[in-house]
Amino acid sequence: MLKDFEKSKPEDKEIVSTQIREMRDELFSYLQGLKEKKLPVLVLVEGWAAAGKGSLIKELISEIDPRFYNVITPPITPEREARYPFLYSYATAIPENGKIIFLDSGWVESLVRARLRLEITQEEYKRRIRQINEFERQLRDGGYLVLKLFLHIDREEQAERMERLCEKAETAWRVTDDDLWQQREYRHFLKCYDEVLEKTDEAVHWHILDGKKRKTAVRDALKLMTGKIKSALEKERYVGDPFREEFPLVKMPLLSEVDLSPAIEEEEYKKELKKLQNRLSELHYEIYMRRIPVVIGYEGWDAAGKGGNIRRVAYPLDPRGFDVHPIASPEPHELNRHFLWRFWTRLPRSGHISIFDRTWYGRVMVERLEGFCSEKDWKRAYNEINEFERQLTEWGAVVLKFWIHIDKDTQLARFNDRQNTPEKQWKITDEDWRNREKWDLYEEAVNDMIRKTSTENAPWYIIESNDKKYARLRTLRIIIKALEDACSHAFERQLG
Amino acid sequence: MLKDFEKSKPEDKEIVSTQIREMRDELFSYLQGLKEKKLPVLVLVEGWAAAGKGSLIKELISEIDPRFYNVITPPITPEREARYPFLYSYATAIPENGKIIFLDSGWVESLVRARLRLEITQEEYKRRIRQINEFERQLRDGGYLVLKLFLHIDREEQAERMERLCEKAETAWRVTDDDLWQQREYRHFLKCYDEVLEKTDEAVHWHILDGKKRKTAVRDALKLMTGKIKSALEKERYVGDPFREEFPLVKMPLLSEVDLSPAIEEEEYKKELKKLQNRLSELHYEIYMRRIPVVIGYEGWDAAGKGGNIRRVAYPLDPRGFDVHPIASPEPHELNRHFLWRFWTRLPRSGHISIFDRTWYGRVMVERLEGFCSEKDWKRAYNEINEFERQLTEWGAVVLKFWIHIDKDTQLARFNDRQNTPEKQWKITDEDWRNREKWDLYEEAVNDMIRKTSTENAPWYIIESNDKKYARLRTLRIIIKALEDACSHAFERQLG
Repeated sequence: MLKDFEKSKPEDKEIVSTQIREMRDELFSYLQGLKEKKLPVLVLVEGWAAAGKGSLIKELISEIDPRFYNVITPPITPEREARYPFLYSYATAIPENGKIIFLDSGWVESLVRARLRLEITQEEYKRRIRQINEFERQLRDGGYLVLKLFLHIDREEQAERMERLCEKAETAWRVTDDDLWQQREYRHFLKCYDEVLEKTDEAVHWHILDGKKRKTAVRDALKLMTGKIKSALEKERYVGDPFREEFPLVKMPLLSEVDLSPAIEEEEYKKELKKLQNRLSELHYEIYMRRIPVVIGYEGWDAAGKGGNIRRVAYPLDPRGFDVHPIASPEPHELNRHFLWRFWTRLPRSGHISIFDRTWYGRVMVERLEGFCSEKDWKRAYNEINEFERQLTEWGAVVLKFWIHIDKDTQLARFNDRQNTPEKQWKITDEDWRNREKWDLYEEAVNDMIRKTSTENAPWYIIESNDKKYARLRTLRIIIKALEDACSHAFERQLG
Repeated sequence: MLKDFEKSKPEDKEIVSTQIREMRDELFSYLQGLKEKKLPVLVLVEGWAAAGKGSLIKELISEIDPRFYNVITPPITPEREARYPFLYSYATAIPENGKIIFLDSGWVESLVRARLRLEITQEEYKRRIRQINEFERQLRDGGYLVLKLFLHIDREEQAERMERLCEKAETAWRVTDDDLWQQREYRHFLKCYDEVLEKTDEAVHWHILDGKKRKTAVRDALKLMTGKIKSALEKERYVGDPFREEFPLVKMPLLSEVDLSPAIEEEEYKKELKKLQNRLSELHYEIYMRRIPVVIGYEGWDAAGKGGNIRRVAYPLDPRGFDVHPIASPEPHELNRHFLWRFWTRLPRSGHISIFDRTWYGRVMVERLEGFCSEKDWKRAYNEINEFERQLTEWGAVVLKFWIHIDKDTQLARFNDRQNTPEKQWKITDEDWRNREKWDLYEEAVNDMIRKTSTENAPWYIIESNDKKYARLRTLRIIIKALEDACSHAFERQLG
């Protein structure tokens, strides 16, 4: 893509300036529509050091009311790179509906540098390219307008610019050691940029701009922006078709096939609980030391015993090393973004545990059944979730998902108990009764979900919870087993 | 406080255990009320290394449903400490209404370490103590229940515990170099903790717990929590009286006294604008290099020209180094916290510029006039804002506040223009017309605000904007002057 890039012909400066003015006016005229149609726009500006990314963005935003955009320079600190998944800084920075985000460097820069610094294996490099394509496709399918620009200059131009900056004390500090390294290794960077651009030209295409000609680059970028925004506003908001990748799946039973009779005696429960909690406590320190992130998702019928189960798991954990995230219906600023955004922002740091009390699977249960999203949306979500969870496990996370299962009679008994016990009344709402009426529809949705998202890397566990005590011991055992496995494989993993 | 701490007498273990169980039940019974009465609770747990802060918190949360609490270990990274105000990590971590936040170490730990590491001057140390008292009072006055616990052990006990941890490979890593330093310098830490506790016993009192007796410490902490929550739930939500500190104020004219005739010719405007923008662009790099944070707040009449003014200021800035924050009415998660929270979370890193299009002064204008807060709330806010802004300038920030001023006729002309120009119609709403009817009330509120919050460190500038071009040049000149001054004083400042 870069190697065979043809420099553009010289153009009349006056004409280009006029075009820029016209295009700015045009862009300006779309902004209100952007807001009304709730179109989110992500403009990724990548390119060589000293190619003028900052100046380009400055020109692009100059006529835009600040209410409509933000410029983000993703904070790539060593802490962030080391302790969160590769795409974390970008997935948490996506625009909300009706807003434009300009990203000043993004996943390409981050990937190319990690690769050339030899921080990642060839295998991880390939995985990250795949993750980028997944990320961009998910945004596109979710109605995001993504525009990818690469500002290109050749080695000589870059050398000249850096020299000029270095001549004066006021500007010399702007040339970093990293920039000088890029200049020395231009040839390797070129090869790597080229390859990454080539391989990420899938869901969203790249646009290479000639960084040597600042004005025409601005004009070309504005032209692309206005053109894409215009056509996005003219059409219905884009909704992607379900994308199907074959994930290796674990065969799971239907809910109706699960034997709910397992139970345990009080005496044995107490003894076992203590033993398991002690073991989990030890393991918590071990995963902290080994920097293994852990993501545990709970779903289940109302009154199945999620809360009590979570409390028994959380009790032995060091409170400095875990979080429980109760997931209610999304707040407005969450609703205004991709449905996975509010889970990306709640991921644990490496070495920490995040427990989700209800999860991203709301998409294929309540949102599906209540019509909070379109049919295409929830049908697409199985794959999107599988991709999301694969990205987590590739990062090194342990991902566990529990369906806390009871039968309809048990639910009724527990509902009645809640209704009749003053201290428990807050736990039962009209909505719980309404959901109960839709039991069969939910059962169908849950069966679909479990069947389609029980991947080998992040399987579902159906937890028999007619006896809550039995259920608690079972989740504890599953967690302990998973953490033990992860600890014993962590070192091998890191060796690559 | 610590020096004369009397160890508690030995107690019967069985009795203490029973008391813990009872208190847990009691605490549990208040949780729903906490939510209903929207009471936010902040439990700060400070104390010696190895005193058992983590275990104490673990016991406190063990019966609480995760929906009601979060444990936060403030991420004190060097980046955060160096680039944000002292209280940033805590002010951004306060609970929302109806939730409990447990802070595992907080401002005391941070201050004592900075002091003993000799990272701050004696003067800065005193300022931070004052800031802590301001912060705690503001929370208390805003209806927060703040509970401050200090877990105390003596030098021998600490030594023993650390030795025990160091004996085994599985636990040795938990003793950090910092902990060992504390053990060696126990005497100095004791003196400093003692002093800080003594001096921050103002708005919210300290409770010292005997860390040697784990069970009684848990019992005592639970007793305090339940007692305080109980009495907070029984009373009306606490609202503090206006607190008055004499801030050195700049004398300001009334709005009606401002001469709005200044204007400028197009020709001269263009020339000057370019010159000033170039200068601002240079200065932006300089404040970036010198790590000076800049906070610019815009308020003004509807249609006064805030947006265009901000655009002219933003245009010459490097987009990587500034943000514009348009402030609309608060979202639910913002409304559920102290009114300054959504501004704390939007502060710039040092070396960056944050421009606020409308600000925290909404409290004493729209919230006052529309009754969105109580009279005590907005009357208290002048002082709270002065304290907030002083904390910013003490951190090293340049804080500038512009009131973009026009007269009533000019507003009417601009409203009509907006109404009659299709591309501008989105800028005018019914609310604008309604606000216009309340011009006189607003004028009174603005006069109060400008008079009470024009502190020497963060004065208001009334910008004559009947001629928008004149106004733009004037704000640019004020910003340039302030940044030049800050740059020339920055080095002296850092020397102390």
